[in-house]
Amino acid sequence: MTDDYAHLRQLALPDLRQRIRHSSWRGHTAGLACGYLQANVVIVPESQALDFSRFCQRNPKPCPLVGVSDTGDPKMRTLGSDIDVRSDIPRYTVYRHGEAVDTPTDIRELWQPDHVAFALGCSFTFEHALMQSGIAMWHVDNDRTVPMYRTDLPLISSGVFGGEMVVSMRTIAAERIDDVVRLCRRFPLAHGVPVQVGEPDAIGIRNLREPDWGDAPELPDDAVPVFWACGVTTQQALIRAALPLAITHAPGHMLISDVDDQAEVAVLPP
Amino acid sequence: MTDDYAHLRQLALPDLRQRIRHSSWRGHTAGLACGYLQANVVIVPESQALDFSRFCQRNPKPCPLVGVSDTGDPKMRTLGSDIDVRSDIPRYTVYRHGEAVDTPTDIRELWQPDHVAFALGCSFTFEHALMQSGIAMWHVDNDRTVPMYRTDLPLISSGVFGGEMVVSMRTIAAERIDDVVRLCRRFPLAHGVPVQVGEPDAIGIRNLREPDWGDAPELPDDAVPVFWACGVTTQQALIRAALPLAITHAPGHMLISDVDDQAEVAVLPP
Repeated sequence: MTDDYAHLRQLALPDLRQRIRHSSWRGHTAGLACGYLQANVVIVPESQALDFSRFCQRNPKPCPLVGVSDTGDPKMRTLGSDIDVRSDIPRYTVYRHGEAVDTPTDIRELWQPDHVAFALGCSFTFEHALMQSGIAMWHVDNDRTVPMYRTDLPLISSGVFGGEMVVSMRTIAAERIDDVVRLCRRFPLAHGVPVQVGEPDAIGIRNLREPDWGDAPELPDDAVPVFWACGVTTQQALIRAALPLAITHAPGHMLISDVDDQAEVAVLPP
Repeated sequence: MTDDYAHLRQLALPDLRQRIRHSSWRGHTAGLACGYLQANVVIVPESQALDFSRFCQRNPKPCPLVGVSDTGDPKMRTLGSDIDVRSDIPRYTVYRHGEAVDTPTDIRELWQPDHVAFALGCSFTFEHALMQSGIAMWHVDNDRTVPMYRTDLPLISSGVFGGEMVVSMRTIAAERIDDVVRLCRRFPLAHGVPVQVGEPDAIGIRNLREPDWGDAPELPDDAVPVFWACGVTTQQALIRAALPLAITHAPGHMLISDVDDQAEVAVLPP
């Protein structure tokens, strides 16, 4: 599959989307179709959609909304001319009553006429911008998954959605922290500026070497741990909400949109 | 009332809010409580709220969402510790079936258990930032209302909400255009970068001297007309939607929040 991944990195977006649509690519999307906005996806019934949209609006750091489908319409029309959210993600997670019960590569059979799909910005956007400015991403250079941690940062509730924020961590050289904050401020739709710099204790993280998700990080003496709001927050909120049925992308297996990931707004012109 | 306005400009926000709440100030809010985020407000029934929130998400330049109330709850809890949207705006416009029928200073009698209040960012935020950078605002210096125009820029529809974008216009010295774009990029929740620079024809504006709302501008030879997406877009969409009942702030009479108008996100910490 590694050879296949190397080949996929060269593919133009339309070809890549076809491969994902027909489940011939079922892997993660990091490094694919560079320059296009990738998104977390959450699908809930319309009866929960207003509360979920309020939850995202109230927690814009972990949950930056970049697209919402019409009810029952699987096309994400503002994110691409031909995106079908039922097939255009390499792998999904299906939650029933708050429990992950399946990880299919297609959800055409599960999609309901009352479903609403939400797309949320993801960290690939700012990582891309930081690397272009010469700021190394350890997990990218070493082909690891970024470490993620539960925190005690409370979310603002909406209906059944609430809980605490999940963050991702990257170590940054002390002299580049100001650059990181400045650059990330440009990407409010990709978690924006870090929520904490240098003090894991301050947000309830006890042991950096034991992340709740992802790979354990290296912690060089001359680097500072920097924490960003993370899209996994949404999945934790969904588990807590325990809806009869909810569907998300599988972690790292994102929806790739037609939108430029440096664009001011995540909406294609009509 | 001018003396009164001069006095009001000196008031701290809690005092000012009390005056507005008790309808002892019924005028516009430009220049009041400087440094706090001001917002457009739109109140619709819950049955239309999901579509309206999708309309805002799809048209983030004219309709940047900065707050949404719970259904039936008149408190805008993420915008302030003590904001009641039924009383804390100096003047409202009441629409019935798409027609403005009243402009009360309080809507306690009209508020319904199924009402949802939406707050949207406004141009005061970026005007403030531009003036602090030495970029003059003609309409502010001359105590006029900014000129606003209908355009042929289509909005992306959601349910009954759609139409064309309304823009505001400010003339800017040619050598400051780049600064304006750079500064406005920092305020995605306040209409962001201009939608057009220098070419009114390109967005369907025929005569700059005859705005559809606001005062006719001066057009100095050495300045360029610059156009920003405008919150009046929302009111036009509401008129077009012709709901049985919808309520907005009256133009220029905004909701003043507790949020710093330079903040990255328009949400107070929980």
